[in-house]
Amino acid sequence: MKIITQSLTEDSAAYLQGYLRQGDAATYPAMIIVPGGSYTHIPEQQAEDLALAWSARGYQAFFLRYSFVGEKTPLLPAPIVELAQSVAMLRQHATDWQIDVAKINVAGFSVGGHIVALFNDLWPNATLNQLAGTQPEQVKPHAIILGYPVISPKLGFPTDQQVLASWTDDPDSIAADERVTDRNAPTFIWATAADPLVPAQNALSYAQASLAHHVDTDLHLFHHGPHGLALANHVTAWKPGTALPHVAHWVDLANEWLDELD
Amino acid sequence: MKIITQSLTEDSAAYLQGYLRQGDAATYPAMIIVPGGSYTHIPEQQAEDLALAWSARGYQAFFLRYSFVGEKTPLLPAPIVELAQSVAMLRQHATDWQIDVAKINVAGFSVGGHIVALFNDLWPNATLNQLAGTQPEQVKPHAIILGYPVISPKLGFPTDQQVLASWTDDPDSIAADERVTDRNAPTFIWATAADPLVPAQNALSYAQASLAHHVDTDLHLFHHGPHGLALANHVTAWKPGTALPHVAHWVDLANEWLDELD
Repeated sequence: MKIITQSLTEDSAAYLQGYLRQGDAATYPAMIIVPGGSYTHIPEQQAEDLALAWSARGYQAFFLRYSFVGEKTPLLPAPIVELAQSVAMLRQHATDWQIDVAKINVAGFSVGGHIVALFNDLWPNATLNQLAGTQPEQVKPHAIILGYPVISPKLGFPTDQQVLASWTDDPDSIAADERVTDRNAPTFIWATAADPLVPAQNALSYAQASLAHHVDTDLHLFHHGPHGLALANHVTAWKPGTALPHVAHWVDLANEWLDELD
Repeated sequence: MKIITQSLTEDSAAYLQGYLRQGDAATYPAMIIVPGGSYTHIPEQQAEDLALAWSARGYQAFFLRYSFVGEKTPLLPAPIVELAQSVAMLRQHATDWQIDVAKINVAGFSVGGHIVALFNDLWPNATLNQLAGTQPEQVKPHAIILGYPVISPKLGFPTDQQVLASWTDDPDSIAADERVTDRNAPTFIWATAADPLVPAQNALSYAQASLAHHVDTDLHLFHHGPHGLALANHVTAWKPGTALPHVAHWVDLANEWLDELD
């Protein structure tokens, strides 16, 4: 494995960190992890652990350190633009990085799920591509994974209106369940029903919108567990009750689902 | 194993078939399978295969042959009454049948899921218990499982109004998602997003009602697969494309979820 760090643009702190397999295979599918962290930070060790879980399953894995609140005002859509630029960058470096350009996947967690859900809605959008300096065919994802995602400020997170104002000056525009189209990529969603921070209704509403638009949808709601479980195993457990074997099935369920897509 | 057949009442064709473990353990948890069949028949071999899957996981397993359209007019609530009588019968025979009375579970599939979902909503209901000749504490389920359930005639099945009229003269009363209460038992729900017969919205609506009433809820929506997959493995496959390893995880997911309940 080779670990690389790649800046995205000169005017932002965003970068991609890549965990690149260097085997004999000509190409591998790719997975870009978009971690959570309330739009104020990212847990880098957890982001790496999530990337390594996909590396272990045969993916060229990356995580995105996107812009945070305070670095752009309001923050959005900067992280979505940066994710579009990331996907385009993987396509651009496909030969060097041994990536199958038809299999560039993105997985977002918590507010990272918000970024990924909106990106999934907007990847063909002209404004997004203008901001990113890309064409839709450069940023099209193969499939997306959402873990305990924030989907809409109308669904219980954030509760603080000042926090919301730091994210956007147009809250309606960031309700990801309201912007799903028939062009959304196949979508795997998981959450815990008991999530006390980001209500599971966020995951359910995005799944329902995806189904309504005939998007390939796999949804798993596990009864127990707090917010932010990541791999839900001992690798990412940060307190008692966060290594949960029932929830930890999500990784293999998602991997199996990806294998069943075209 | 001992196989038993037990009639429920003199005035109906309903019966329970039991697959009883006869080991040294004093008691086992129980699982009553309520199969599908459009309220006109039940697939007995599939019902047995579902029961045996739970027997193999350490349960005293049963399936219910409930009353069909034509045997009662309109049919409902007869099958729900028969399920209540079945749970009471398991409690009554708990010593003989080596059943842990605190662990009587019910699993319904397709219209069997409709019976089980309504039973879950109504087990404390005075009218239901009067019809069944039972008390609520005799019929209380420990937990329920719903596979590709019919939930409400407002959600796309049945499409034929004559069929619906043969089920009930009060369609509102059989919308199971509208009758969930805080007393519902823990609920595991699975379906396929692509189900062309009973829309997955049935499963989603019941899950959302369960969550709204703080019911322990585990929900799994698998992207591919037709209606009526049962075990979704080669044991119950009835045509090409009905042995689906991704979907077949539901049995172990449900078993694991049951083990995590009190």
